[in-house]
Amino acid sequence: MVFERTKLIRFHHCDPAGIVFYPQYLVLCNELVEDWFDEGLGVNFFTLHSEIKRGVPMRHLEADFLAPSVHGDELTFSLAVEHLGGSSMRLAISAMKDGKVRFAAKQTVVWAALDGAPRPVPIEPEWRERFGRYFVD
Amino acid sequence: MVFERTKLIRFHHCDPAGIVFYPQYLVLCNELVEDWFDEGLGVNFFTLHSEIKRGVPMRHLEADFLAPSVHGDELTFSLAVEHLGGSSMRLAISAMKDGKVRFAAKQTVVWAALDGAPRPVPIEPEWRERFGRYFVD
Amino acid sequence: MVFERTKLIRFHHCDPAGIVFYPQYLVLCNELVEDWFDEGLGVNFFTLHSEIKRGVPMRHLEADFLAPSVHGDELTFSLAVEHLGGSSMRLAISAMKDGKVRFAAKQTVVWAALDGAPRPVPIEPEWRERFGRYFVD
Amino acid sequence: MVFERTKLIRFHHCDPAGIVFYPQYLVLCNELVEDWFDEGLGVNFFTLHSEIKRGVPMRHLEADFLAPSVHGDELTFSLAVEHLGGSSMRLAISAMKDGKVRFAAKQTVVWAALDGAPRPVPIEPEWRERFGRYFVD
Repeated sequence: MVFERTKLIRFHHCDPAGIVFYPQYLVLCNELVEDWFDEGLGVNFFTLHSEIKRGVPMRHLEADFLAPSVHGDELTFSLAVEHLGGSSMRLAISAMKDGKVRFAAKQTVVWAALDGAPRPVPIEPEWRERFGRYFVD
Repeated sequence: MVFERTKLIRFHHCDPAGIVFYPQYLVLCNELVEDWFDEGLGVNFFTLHSEIKRGVPMRHLEADFLAPSVHGDELTFSLAVEHLGGSSMRLAISAMKDGKVRFAAKQTVVWAALDGAPRPVPIEPEWRERFGRYFVD
Repeated sequence: MVFERTKLIRFHHCDPAGIVFYPQYLVLCNELVEDWFDEGLGVNFFTLHSEIKRGVPMRHLEADFLAPSVHGDELTFSLAVEHLGGSSMRLAISAMKDGKVRFAAKQTVVWAALDGAPRPVPIEPEWRERFGRYFVD
Repeated sequence: MVFERTKLIRFHHCDPAGIVFYPQYLVLCNELVEDWFDEGLGVNFFTLHSEIKRGVPMRHLEADFLAPSVHGDELTFSLAVEHLGGSSMRLAISAMKDGKVRFAAKQTVVWAALDGAPRPVPIEPEWRERFGRYFVD
């Protein structure tokens, strides 16, 4: 299963060249991961941090910026789990418009305990099951 | 030759976990590239865009987030040219503190003409010479 | 008539104290003004800039930060026109949760022509009519 | 005494109109307040939060955006204390270039204890003395 959300490119995402300033794509990816927890996995991202004491800090990132986007564009962001490791997972994220990929990323995030200094912990079975629903080979 | 600048981690770079929000590392990389043009290559980054009509849009990015940084940290950012292609180059950027790498990235940027829609153009000999000074094998 | 939109406080809006970093309220206000043009006034904000060559640069801002908001809060933003001048207007914006105002601002924006250097121009009758629909005494 | 620092307008501060996106002026004000604590008042801003458990959340803001700034501009930011109350103070901040004010703000910040939920506390005599050095009538 793939998680999808439409995101509107805002004036404040764009730079003097009139196109999305590239770090803003990563801010939008962060929003997408929030949406995925809130609406796809059914666990509020704020609760995840504040009560469940888990988080998903970024460990490794690869991204391709394939075509520019401008203010007013509506992009379809997709997220799938590409690899589910012991205490990390690799997410495949892309942003498309009119059937063309504008931006594509692989993000390896750590499953981290947040009680005290963040540290990697094994992905618990219930979480493995949740994340696994979005596994795409 | 390697280009270096110290950057202070600001309150506004950090997230509710108290550490640098990862897209902010890329904003700092963008500042570093500006500094490199202004002070390392001797060509003002604003003039580059507005008069010389050249820019360096991001094409491919790889980044490792190796250890967290907090508000108040002074990081030493380094930049070198790792590969100099026909109309693109790959920059190696890292951020260290106390001899330990916190963040490391490879950024492939395009050498683009900005008169009209941005398009890749061959790196002219004078620019090849400038960029080449920071080539590190 | 008052224009309203719900905005979700994102992880990336918040600072190490765990609350909205105050300039982010103004980024959200900017989104609200975009939404107002797109959906309230029926003129796409991107088209406004790129084709109609009009914009609404900020001239004067007053803001009260009355209670903190945290990641995960859903705030109801409201916008009304409080004063409609010759070539400027004052917007009253607030953000509430559970009937309590968290943030309130008055923003005086200029009606500016964007063909060449931005300059104030008289608000045309058709625009005066549009803006007037959201006038609240 | 007035506290001054030069700030360079970066590419990432600017919007598709090529000028500073107005909330970014407030991010720069926040940096200025950090600089003031670190270098003017001699108390590291990070230590202030993490050890001394004091902070200066924004309560009321007024700002005038008088002339646009572009990427590459070096602005001289000034900060003075205009009013020193029981548990708050009003800062006067401006940003100039070539003797002309581009941006001016009054910011009322609260002197807050950060052990537990932030709450206003009386400005202690030692802090009153420190802040008082930058008092300008």
